[in-house]
Amino acid sequence: MASPAPPQTRSPELRHDPVTNRWIVFSPARAKRPSDFKSKTPENPNPSNNTCPFCIGNEHECAPEIFRFPPDPGNPEWKVRVIENLYPALSRNLDNSSEQSLGLDFPGRMLSGFGFHDVVIEVPVHSVQLRDMETREIGDVLLAYKKRIEQIMSFESIKYVQVFKNHGASAGASLSHSHSQIMALPVIPPSVSARLDGTKEYFDKTGKCSLCVVHTEKLLIDESTHFFSIVPFAATFPFEIWIIPRDHSSHFHELKCEKAVDLAGLLKLMLKKMSLQLNNPPFNFMIQTAPLRIKESQLPYTHWFLQIVPQLTGIGGFELGTGCYINPVFPEDAAKLLREVDLP
Amino acid sequence: MASPAPPQTRSPELRHDPVTNRWIVFSPARAKRPSDFKSKTPENPNPSNNTCPFCIGNEHECAPEIFRFPPDPGNPEWKVRVIENLYPALSRNLDNSSEQSLGLDFPGRMLSGFGFHDVVIEVPVHSVQLRDMETREIGDVLLAYKKRIEQIMSFESIKYVQVFKNHGASAGASLSHSHSQIMALPVIPPSVSARLDGTKEYFDKTGKCSLCVVHTEKLLIDESTHFFSIVPFAATFPFEIWIIPRDHSSHFHELKCEKAVDLAGLLKLMLKKMSLQLNNPPFNFMIQTAPLRIKESQLPYTHWFLQIVPQLTGIGGFELGTGCYINPVFPEDAAKLLREVDLP
Ligand SMILES: Nc1ncnc2c1ncn2[C@@H]1O[C@H](COP(=O)(O)OP(=O)(O)O[C@H]2O[C@H](CO)[C@@H](O)[C@H](O)[C@H]2O)[C@@H](O)[C@H]1O
Ligand SMILES: Nc1ncnc2c1ncn2[C@@H]1O[C@H](COP(=O)(O)OP(=O)(O)O[C@H]2O[C@H](CO)[C@@H](O)[C@H](O)[C@H]2O)[C@@H](O)[C@H]1O
Repeated sequence: MASPAPPQTRSPELRHDPVTNRWIVFSPARAKRPSDFKSKTPENPNPSNNTCPFCIGNEHECAPEIFRFPPDPGNPEWKVRVIENLYPALSRNLDNSSEQSLGLDFPGRMLSGFGFHDVVIEVPVHSVQLRDMETREIGDVLLAYKKRIEQIMSFESIKYVQVFKNHGASAGASLSHSHSQIMALPVIPPSVSARLDGTKEYFDKTGKCSLCVVHTEKLLIDESTHFFSIVPFAATFPFEIWIIPRDHSSHFHELKCEKAVDLAGLLKLMLKKMSLQLNNPPFNFMIQTAPLRIKESQLPYTHWFLQIVPQLTGIGGFELGTGCYINPVFPEDAAKLLREVDLP
Repeated sequence: MASPAPPQTRSPELRHDPVTNRWIVFSPARAKRPSDFKSKTPENPNPSNNTCPFCIGNEHECAPEIFRFPPDPGNPEWKVRVIENLYPALSRNLDNSSEQSLGLDFPGRMLSGFGFHDVVIEVPVHSVQLRDMETREIGDVLLAYKKRIEQIMSFESIKYVQVFKNHGASAGASLSHSHSQIMALPVIPPSVSARLDGTKEYFDKTGKCSLCVVHTEKLLIDESTHFFSIVPFAATFPFEIWIIPRDHSSHFHELKCEKAVDLAGLLKLMLKKMSLQLNNPPFNFMIQTAPLRIKESQLPYTHWFLQIVPQLTGIGGFELGTGCYINPVFPEDAAKLLREVDLP
């Protein structure tokens, strides 16, 4: 059966206003996404797989596949699938983005919305969550991210690739089948620029990468052969967790196979501890990596990590207005609690 | 009766990590706030005034009053009250903040959490929302903000004052009685720095303030004598509204009395239109002003405005990870809809 046709709408656009000083993605197609969360309640209703496009057997209801593991497209027994997003925020069919002039009317800038927006279906079965998968299977999901980034790298105008996962309705998920997303952008996003500026400043002052020296007892949760997990010193959110490679490495996609399995083990442990300690909260995780076409001189102070954020508190006008956050839990207290969680 | 005692907890702290490159407010007292929203549902349950500390007659249940309008403290018939927040994110009792050294353990910085966190009770009666008040009364709320900022200005270490309002549980409100908040910070928050950088760049290129030239037909919603309202060219959120003073002005607190009433009228109109067009959504508004101790040279390109954000869509890992936002509604379409709302 043919893949469903993506909805026809005006093409996406990126716009930049000097006042907010950041790029916004305008994407009318996104308004049309389906949701299997009836009303956006924090619980996960986990509806049956009859209606879920991500379930094994329902591949024809999905936008086109990019690749699968194992890689044989004729083998119906897939483990992980990377597919196009049916309601992409950016379009892979637009011309490579070059900045457009706006005439004299607006004091802003504009780019056509060229980019990639893919979905990673992490598991064929509807009811299985990432933390319940085998370590080796979670490793395959991480390697699927890596492979997809390596493919996207060939597009000169893509500057940054964001891998992220939404779990639970109040963490933004619109479908409950375990999945993550990969978005490839023609601009370097503001949080990434801020991170490069901050770590550069620290490097210039001390000659050190701030993530190479962050390994401290009070903030430590757990360790594996190649990674360690902490609650960061100035965590933005309560019980935020970072999983950091021990050896300095700028790009997530440099991850080697054996390290992927090691990372998968620590990720699984963190998700299990978080679920137990915080009562299965909605959460997001994000891979914080370096821009694709980064200057050699920036490599010594960029160090990728995986950031996990349980959604426990909302935000309000203060955070929207200032970009500052209020965290009611001191990181050393959160780290102690997570360190001491006893898994059954 | 004496005011209730604020809960005793560890003092608030500001921390800065080079990796996120922003200050986070750590504030254990905030974990103890009451909420009259049982579970954070989007509806406003509007409980009775028996239990509401902000209702007229329940003043003894509030943290200490700073001032009221009309100013006679003996007159029980107040219109607006500015009070201390009982669960302040920052503490007015700490020493003025000077940066603390952290030893060698953390690659981060730390400030004691000195600052002010006040609540503005906008109306004595529980069931009245801001948009239903008389224009003159809304003007008094705006003048209460102005007066409080002018008081706070005398503290040398306060760098920025954020005025904001949360309406509805999913916009962060924990109490439904109409109110707003004022938070005075010992640092310049990241969104404000980004705004100064962006408008400076535009000014350096064109010799113009970007908000002085933003008045364009396609984005315009409404106008008053001294203000106009638009959907900004690169709105971060669908149906976001900015109310902008026509004449260049850097600081909100420079607002004159007669302009406050004019602004109140346009604010009331925007809140009414938004409520009608979008079915009484939860929303936030924020006053985007300039830092208190701003350099003379920055004044030509900073122009304050009032930002209104209806909460229509959530966010997910993409936004958390990148600081980039996806907006499904083009600003010119939102502006047209809001322009054409017919008020009864
Ligand atoms: N048949 C099909 N084939 C292929 N793809 C399909 C499909 N049916 C649905 N999809 C896509 O699957 C994705 C599922 O993603 P999530 O549940 O993680 O959150 P979503 O992207 O909806 O939005 C959340 O994450 C984004 C990004 O952080 C936020 O902007 C948003 O507010 C938040 O709700 C959607 O993007 C959807 O477009
Ligand atoms: N008796 C009393 N006397 C004086 N003050 C009293 C009081 N009882 C309660 N308060 C205070 O009144 C305020 C009411 O504020 P809001 O309802 O606007 O949201 P809140 O600050 O709770 O949090 C929202 O806004 C903040 C800031 O944006 C976000 O951090 C948060 O996630 C979001 O829920 C609270 O700050 C509370 O501490």
